[in-house]
Amino acid sequence: MRDFLPAEKARREAILAVIRDVYRRHGFDEIETPVAEDSSRLHAGLGGDNEKLAFGILKRGLTREDLQAAQEPLDLADLGLRFDLTVPLARFYATHRAELPSVFRAIQIAPVWRAERPQKGRYRQFVQCDIDILGEPTVRAEAELLVASLDALDALGLEGAFIRVNDRRLLTGMLATLGFAAAEYDGVLITIDKFDKVGHDGVLAELRERGVTPAAVDALEAFFRRPQTMEFLPFGEAAIRKTLPEDPDPAAIADLVALGEAVAAARGDGAGELLVFDPFLVRGMGYYTGPIFELAHPSVGYSLGGGGRYDGMIGRFLGSDVPATGFSLGFERLVDLVQLDTAAGQDAVALLHDAGVPLGALIALKTALIGQGSRVRLVARPKNVKTTLDALAADGFTRFAFVDAATTAESLELRTLA
Amino acid sequence: MRDFLPAEKARREAILAVIRDVYRRHGFDEIETPVAEDSSRLHAGLGGDNEKLAFGILKRGLTREDLQAAQEPLDLADLGLRFDLTVPLARFYATHRAELPSVFRAIQIAPVWRAERPQKGRYRQFVQCDIDILGEPTVRAEAELLVASLDALDALGLEGAFIRVNDRRLLTGMLATLGFAAAEYDGVLITIDKFDKVGHDGVLAELRERGVTPAAVDALEAFFRRPQTMEFLPFGEAAIRKTLPEDPDPAAIADLVALGEAVAAARGDGAGELLVFDPFLVRGMGYYTGPIFELAHPSVGYSLGGGGRYDGMIGRFLGSDVPATGFSLGFERLVDLVQLDTAAGQDAVALLHDAGVPLGALIALKTALIGQGSRVRLVARPKNVKTTLDALAADGFTRFAFVDAATTAESLELRTLA
Repeated sequence: MRDFLPAEKARREAILAVIRDVYRRHGFDEIETPVAEDSSRLHAGLGGDNEKLAFGILKRGLTREDLQAAQEPLDLADLGLRFDLTVPLARFYATHRAELPSVFRAIQIAPVWRAERPQKGRYRQFVQCDIDILGEPTVRAEAELLVASLDALDALGLEGAFIRVNDRRLLTGMLATLGFAAAEYDGVLITIDKFDKVGHDGVLAELRERGVTPAAVDALEAFFRRPQTMEFLPFGEAAIRKTLPEDPDPAAIADLVALGEAVAAARGDGAGELLVFDPFLVRGMGYYTGPIFELAHPSVGYSLGGGGRYDGMIGRFLGSDVPATGFSLGFERLVDLVQLDTAAGQDAVALLHDAGVPLGALIALKTALIGQGSRVRLVARPKNVKTTLDALAADGFTRFAFVDAATTAESLELRTLA
Repeated sequence: MRDFLPAEKARREAILAVIRDVYRRHGFDEIETPVAEDSSRLHAGLGGDNEKLAFGILKRGLTREDLQAAQEPLDLADLGLRFDLTVPLARFYATHRAELPSVFRAIQIAPVWRAERPQKGRYRQFVQCDIDILGEPTVRAEAELLVASLDALDALGLEGAFIRVNDRRLLTGMLATLGFAAAEYDGVLITIDKFDKVGHDGVLAELRERGVTPAAVDALEAFFRRPQTMEFLPFGEAAIRKTLPEDPDPAAIADLVALGEAVAAARGDGAGELLVFDPFLVRGMGYYTGPIFELAHPSVGYSLGGGGRYDGMIGRFLGSDVPATGFSLGFERLVDLVQLDTAAGQDAVALLHDAGVPLGALIALKTALIGQGSRVRLVARPKNVKTTLDALAADGFTRFAFVDAATTAESLELRTLA
């Protein structure tokens, strides 16, 4: 977990403000849930491997006897810090459904916690920026998610980002066509999810080791090795069919084609390169049921975000199914890529004052400048003015003035900070 | 702990944005610390009674043997959720001092957690808005805190707020003059702190029960019962001396007088009513050393915030003393009092579309309106349009249009929502 010093905090808040503003314009509404959820809800099987990484919060008022009687640590925790924003959203929607629009577009911008082994670029507390649409069964929802997210990246000035697209229905259709048994799908998808890291041969070796239907693994190998033209096809039906075995799910194909048309309608020229069909994109979580996405950028090898449709999940909390789809920006990774001038346009004045200036006079000068729209900082005049002025300029201050006991608002001489 | 639905979340964020902006203009810089601090640090005696309310976070990887061996719950927690923003600030400053200005003005706007028995108006997760000035030993710091906080309340449109002021040096001076022993001060202050709730007689009864120096309690009773003129004196030396026993600490008097002059310099006419000297204001925490404050409003009986100087505390983390003073706005209580129009000025359009409109056309219409600066929401055209339009108006939407398969950006007919 990290501290954020002023410059970094300002940068983070400026980036979040841009994202929040774009998502609001696209019709989404921000909500907030508490950082802690009931432990039983966090460990209900909806969080995949992340459940194991949840921080547990000790019950209050535990006695020594309680500690002795506990069979495992979770017996002592009634709450836990959320490991994602999807489980809390499902619980929120189940609680407040009657007060929300029938199609609810949610923004959640908030920290989550995972007890991962600390390593470069991985933090135990990190911010997620999620948008979700609950209650909309058609691909209209996915179109709104992707167009809004692409607009947010644009507003941040991040050029060149694109979205890898697949559909869980196409994945399972492919596994069926290749001859895997339905009971093997989940395990096979976990292996295929490692494709980016281990390649064709790694996937095949792991599947053979796992002992799934050998003929299906052979069919997958043949599919991997099939001759392919190098011709580039923009995102659309032809591009999708080209990379799939025969007879893909027509509803899934129609959805992805409509999604491509929607992005093209919003983005015009060049939209064909914003989406890329990836037949081996899996996304780790088991709850996805339809289109799935992953945000990529040529400058980095890792994903900048992603999401997908999870129609069955809300029903686990609510009892009745509610269609749902979401997209999550990997904020901590975006922060490293985005250049944003956070202090632009704000006049900031430092008043370097002698020790003898009466406090009332100093406060009056500060108040007058703030009233004119400036940000103002009082600084006791140091021996080494140059060092102080350099530090102030680095902090975003644009002007300064010396103040002595005789200085008035009228006689104040403001100079520009280089 | 609470969920925040869209309207309430928007209101909270709008209020926080106003506070943040005012504090930034007054030269403060926002920082952020993780929600969790080391358990040993949270339980180091700096948090007073709040330490007992800290939520503990379970160590990871605990075995059954670990549970058996634990003597008390805290043995199983290495981290805890912060119960205030002062302990994290002290730790932050000790860690990052070399990277911060020699006088550091911090803004912290963030949630804290206390395992209180749930009751009306008390939450287990709540937001605090703190400003602190570290490294400034003179009352300049307090003047900046108070003027900035009064400006923030102004910007929120909250009229009539005032600040009760006292000084720990005057309190201990009063106790000495009355004849209490130095070892009794802390306990006597805890009792005097209940003055607002139990009155003169309650304080005297509790002191007699505690068995502190009887002659001193008699002297306090005589002081309570002394004849007083009802003449109103604006905040200043005369008003302060009038309500104190003889020979108050001259440095404390000078500081409070200067503070009054600074607020008058910033606020002009009527500033004399913004500060009120209260010789029995204690503030609960043991770490205060100088001027102390409590924010009050005529419409409510409870405090809306407060703070004071705590010169000894940073030294507990850093090893060397650093002067410090802070002011905390009770955000959850302010939210209930402040009226702020959060949607003002934002044009928001609802597109009520037929089921048959192609997705690309719908997204193109939405994109065109967003490009013109509107917030846009797609709504499937319902049977009962009136109910839907009313709900949209309540959500802050200002215009709407019907969209069918033939609608284009040119033919779109926007109507005003009443």
